[in-house]
Amino acid sequence: MHYSDYLQLDKILNAQEPEGERLGEPAHDEMLFIVIHQAYELWFHQLLYEVDSVIGIFGQPTLNDNSPELQTIVHRLSRCATILKVLVHQIDIMETMTPMDFLDFRDKLRPASGFQSVQFKLLEARLGLKYEHRFGQQYYLSQLRQPEVDRIKSTEAEPTLLELLNGWLERMPSVWAGTGDAWFADYRQRYQASLADAEKGNLEYFDSVFSGNPPSSPTTQSQSSPATQSSATTRNLSPLACRSALFIMLYRGYPLLQLPFQVLHQLLEIDEQLSTWRYRHMSMVARIIGTRIGTGGSTGRDYLASALERHHLFREIAALTSFLIERRRLPALSAEMESRLGFVAGA
Amino acid sequence: MHYSDYLQLDKILNAQEPEGERLGEPAHDEMLFIVIHQAYELWFHQLLYEVDSVIGIFGQPTLNDNSPELQTIVHRLSRCATILKVLVHQIDIMETMTPMDFLDFRDKLRPASGFQSVQFKLLEARLGLKYEHRFGQQYYLSQLRQPEVDRIKSTEAEPTLLELLNGWLERMPSVWAGTGDAWFADYRQRYQASLADAEKGNLEYFDSVFSGNPPSSPTTQSQSSPATQSSATTRNLSPLACRSALFIMLYRGYPLLQLPFQVLHQLLEIDEQLSTWRYRHMSMVARIIGTRIGTGGSTGRDYLASALERHHLFREIAALTSFLIERRRLPALSAEMESRLGFVAGA
Amino acid sequence: MHYSDYLQLDKILNAQEPEGERLGEPAHDEMLFIVIHQAYELWFHQLLYEVDSVIGIFGQPTLNDNSPELQTIVHRLSRCATILKVLVHQIDIMETMTPMDFLDFRDKLRPASGFQSVQFKLLEARLGLKYEHRFGQQYYLSQLRQPEVDRIKSTEAEPTLLELLNGWLERMPSVWAGTGDAWFADYRQRYQASLADAEKGNLEYFDSVFSGNPPSSPTTQSQSSPATQSSATTRNLSPLACRSALFIMLYRGYPLLQLPFQVLHQLLEIDEQLSTWRYRHMSMVARIIGTRIGTGGSTGRDYLASALERHHLFREIAALTSFLIERRRLPALSAEMESRLGFVAGA
Amino acid sequence: MHYSDYLQLDKILNAQEPEGERLGEPAHDEMLFIVIHQAYELWFHQLLYEVDSVIGIFGQPTLNDNSPELQTIVHRLSRCATILKVLVHQIDIMETMTPMDFLDFRDKLRPASGFQSVQFKLLEARLGLKYEHRFGQQYYLSQLRQPEVDRIKSTEAEPTLLELLNGWLERMPSVWAGTGDAWFADYRQRYQASLADAEKGNLEYFDSVFSGNPPSSPTTQSQSSPATQSSATTRNLSPLACRSALFIMLYRGYPLLQLPFQVLHQLLEIDEQLSTWRYRHMSMVARIIGTRIGTGGSTGRDYLASALERHHLFREIAALTSFLIERRRLPALSAEMESRLGFVAGA
Repeated sequence: MHYSDYLQLDKILNAQEPEGERLGEPAHDEMLFIVIHQAYELWFHQLLYEVDSVIGIFGQPTLNDNSPELQTIVHRLSRCATILKVLVHQIDIMETMTPMDFLDFRDKLRPASGFQSVQFKLLEARLGLKYEHRFGQQYYLSQLRQPEVDRIKSTEAEPTLLELLNGWLERMPSVWAGTGDAWFADYRQRYQASLADAEKGNLEYFDSVFSGNPPSSPTTQSQSSPATQSSATTRNLSPLACRSALFIMLYRGYPLLQLPFQVLHQLLEIDEQLSTWRYRHMSMVARIIGTRIGTGGSTGRDYLASALERHHLFREIAALTSFLIERRRLPALSAEMESRLGFVAGA
Repeated sequence: MHYSDYLQLDKILNAQEPEGERLGEPAHDEMLFIVIHQAYELWFHQLLYEVDSVIGIFGQPTLNDNSPELQTIVHRLSRCATILKVLVHQIDIMETMTPMDFLDFRDKLRPASGFQSVQFKLLEARLGLKYEHRFGQQYYLSQLRQPEVDRIKSTEAEPTLLELLNGWLERMPSVWAGTGDAWFADYRQRYQASLADAEKGNLEYFDSVFSGNPPSSPTTQSQSSPATQSSATTRNLSPLACRSALFIMLYRGYPLLQLPFQVLHQLLEIDEQLSTWRYRHMSMVARIIGTRIGTGGSTGRDYLASALERHHLFREIAALTSFLIERRRLPALSAEMESRLGFVAGA
Repeated sequence: MHYSDYLQLDKILNAQEPEGERLGEPAHDEMLFIVIHQAYELWFHQLLYEVDSVIGIFGQPTLNDNSPELQTIVHRLSRCATILKVLVHQIDIMETMTPMDFLDFRDKLRPASGFQSVQFKLLEARLGLKYEHRFGQQYYLSQLRQPEVDRIKSTEAEPTLLELLNGWLERMPSVWAGTGDAWFADYRQRYQASLADAEKGNLEYFDSVFSGNPPSSPTTQSQSSPATQSSATTRNLSPLACRSALFIMLYRGYPLLQLPFQVLHQLLEIDEQLSTWRYRHMSMVARIIGTRIGTGGSTGRDYLASALERHHLFREIAALTSFLIERRRLPALSAEMESRLGFVAGA
Repeated sequence: MHYSDYLQLDKILNAQEPEGERLGEPAHDEMLFIVIHQAYELWFHQLLYEVDSVIGIFGQPTLNDNSPELQTIVHRLSRCATILKVLVHQIDIMETMTPMDFLDFRDKLRPASGFQSVQFKLLEARLGLKYEHRFGQQYYLSQLRQPEVDRIKSTEAEPTLLELLNGWLERMPSVWAGTGDAWFADYRQRYQASLADAEKGNLEYFDSVFSGNPPSSPTTQSQSSPATQSSATTRNLSPLACRSALFIMLYRGYPLLQLPFQVLHQLLEIDEQLSTWRYRHMSMVARIIGTRIGTGGSTGRDYLASALERHHLFREIAALTSFLIERRRLPALSAEMESRLGFVAGA
């Protein structure tokens, strides 16, 4: 076993053929352009690998709390967030390429475009983005080859991380079986009492999230809240799943809820890193390409700006923050409940 | 001279008095909240110090190219960008505070709010943001105390970095005196020839930027270009200044243009870091506060989202990217011009 | 409540008085020098606050596994690591100061020196560094004022995080009561079987760590292992505590061991970040000061290089890595043991 | 032209074949291990590409100060530093692999080892590291295949960046022709006058560096100075080259010296980032492997610790910091000299 064989470096290091050289007009920075995109694709490959393994675990009929399953999920999601942070940082390298340096080879690349990264679209699809919610569907279809479209669509047909998360959250009430409804009624009252005058409208929003009542006047709400916008259109998490997520956030100190809390936390981390990546990527594209059309025929910045808002997958979890109340005002849990949330030996 | 006296640590380290402790309801994370804001204010202080020194140099009637003045400007702007990168990173620390931990002391802080940071507003004002272009002017006035409003307004009345930049760029054509107009006419032709069919509309935009002609149908344009939006409303850089900036970008390889190019580059760096900071700050606020009203009475995220777009000060420089052409198609400079752009000893 | 009152910005922002200005020889970069050190001290303050709170929890006679205590410890240690990462990054800002810029005011500062940071020494002391293990004890005493020395020494006399960790690990065998010795004998055999020929010597090292037998020929060992060096001199973790830590690492998948594993992991993170900070700090000092004596009268780099090796507090935990075996070869735990390590509801 | 063809993703994304899967004992984390090493190799490829291009420019008989050559060198070296920062950051990803997770597949990799990265050795060689100065020469030979050893040795036989830098610095005195010796004698006197009592010994060190006199008692010196150690053994920069570098540092404000100063600065940046990478890499190896022998048969940490000190290529430039004096005490340059260091148009 030798390092270079093991890593198949003959393939990895012989996959850079700048168009400029092929055409006899070498442009120094094209090599950087190739290498950085290859590095991104390697990491997308790893992200898919981790997300797929998480989906594999989440997709089981039940998770065994006494197994390392949830711990493994948290660990791998956390690794994804760590990778994404490096990918954000990597944009610094791309930004060492000035617009003039890019122009030296840009035209030779048409119509290739970063938009054609199948792995990135697969990653979005595995996490939970559906074709019908994608921004720019037409453009999306026009850029990909048919087998690629098929591959992504077939991935979209499988259970996504977001759907499996919803299912897992819906099954969780078993842990507070019997007390659920009373607890929730109590909590709703305390939430209402906690609202400042300017916040009174939040109660209607609360009911739409946790009971599925459509808000009476969505337009007024949507001015102040991107979360409401999505509730007016499509929601990915059911009222029951949202109750579980809320319960986890509020009582995360109990042993049985510590890992579930970490799961939610890591999903928000991933969402935030992905969205930071999109934001910096968009700024970088604007800075290097300007408003001329990109190599793929779009004004890249516009597509990216819209996708930024629409492709925020776990925003419904983040939005639950609006429904928390102070720790000291929480309903106390019954002794029986407390024992179910704890360790055998810890008693 | 002793370290702790020199740094006045008796002041620095005795300026943390959590409200929670004062009121007998201590909340562990309030200390973090205080310290991180103080750390931000220290760095805003340093940023103001650097920006003021740059303004001081730029504000002279002329800059001497054979002095270290421009080098100093570049160095200090670059330091500002480095500081801003750390400030972006620092948000990671704030994000170790969960929404529940923040709730433990949030209500005690009302109506104090990060919005009341006078230094940050001074920084925006020194860079070039005018009151009339600020998003949320009403809110802005209501949050600050009168002496603070006065201080910011009096700062706005002084020449800003953006205005001084414009003046400096307007004076620069002296370096290509005599050839300026002919060169520009030539360049405009080459630019036109470089446009792909889908880009033909760019020529009108080109003329509006470099000759001040209002674009015929701003609405069509503005769909595809945030840069045009601003040109439709207010422009901070004159057509003449834009020509200089374009010339610098195109011929940055000549010795005399190397530092001017770095000046433009560092201003874009600062803009990008500031905007990344605003973006991550906004996400962090959404994640910790949700859509409940912030301590200052606003739904913080909404204000921040709007400011993000509006307070992008140097976007007109970034937008020049759209008007570059390939290096190999550039008009050649005359021998006389080349010599003026070079070193005595280099000849 | 107003932002600037709450943060006591009158103190924070009026604590910068450059010596250069006082003496009529202003040096632009002295402001940066002051501000960055103040920012460091603010964060040292926060680090001490977090570490003290962790010590407070760890210092209780017992920890209740069904309370959020361990979760809180992990969360706060993780926050310390996050802060330290920013402090490492902050060195980038200092490095924007060139040696010539530093020389402009360096002499005015003598003999003040970063070595005189009491908070940093307190932090080291709270974590576990004892006076007798400090590098450069003489120098250390000479630089500090008597009340500061007293304050640090009195801190050293209190239980440190390292000592409390040792005590906590020593109490943990209760969780595997009854099976402990048999399990350990079994494990030792499996470890021995796992050693490659070139690693056979590790068994003696194993026994010295877990049974307290002094290694027969420390000199041979110490060539290849810094960890052994310390075992030859002073060990901070007892053999019993090391057995617990090993057990936690091997069986971290069981619910009851998940947070203990995170405790160990976060301590290693802190150690690594602290040591990276020391390393980059040392390089920065060498680059800005060179081998001329520092403002404190030392050739700073030499002190720092030695402290780097000596002040690595949790290296004994990191060194346990040498004693792990493959997961598939681990002794299985009894059903009774497994149930003690799990949840009531999880069964 | 399609994105995935252009990037040859069929090669890049089909080059991951974990040994665990081949042998029917899959280990989840082996994929990460493969991908991260491939990402490193991609970036080493890019670093070599940039360094080679810099060597190509530096290797010309003369550089034309009125061309963009030096600007290009600075830009590409700066890009190398940016890449190295990301490579340092990337270690965070590796550290998400725990020692137990690594053990799951470690034995299957023997004797492959990161030590066998030919590209990293080529990079060191191109920068200036010679075989005879490498730490662990025997080990080095034993790990590589003969064609790889040949390839590295033939690279070592070509002019390195360090040698070309020395040549370039030796040719530079032409810019201060005529005044050189007088200026230097003057400077030496001023330097001597600037030394504090405890620093008097520095003068001898000064003479050894700038005049090539061997220091009288190297042993005393070498205790306090790593820089002296190297001067006692091998120096890579000649006394003449060191005078140029010193001159550049002192008078960097003159236009003609601005880019040369940036060249020196970027080389120090690269050295620091490389050394930070080595340091964190070493810590990571110690943390994941411990003191068991690595997959390549070495106790990795020991090799790495020694290489860290020895492979610091540009330390002689950093060491010049010790010979600077305050700006206000510098010898003034003659009007004739000043004009040679400036612009035609700037006068």
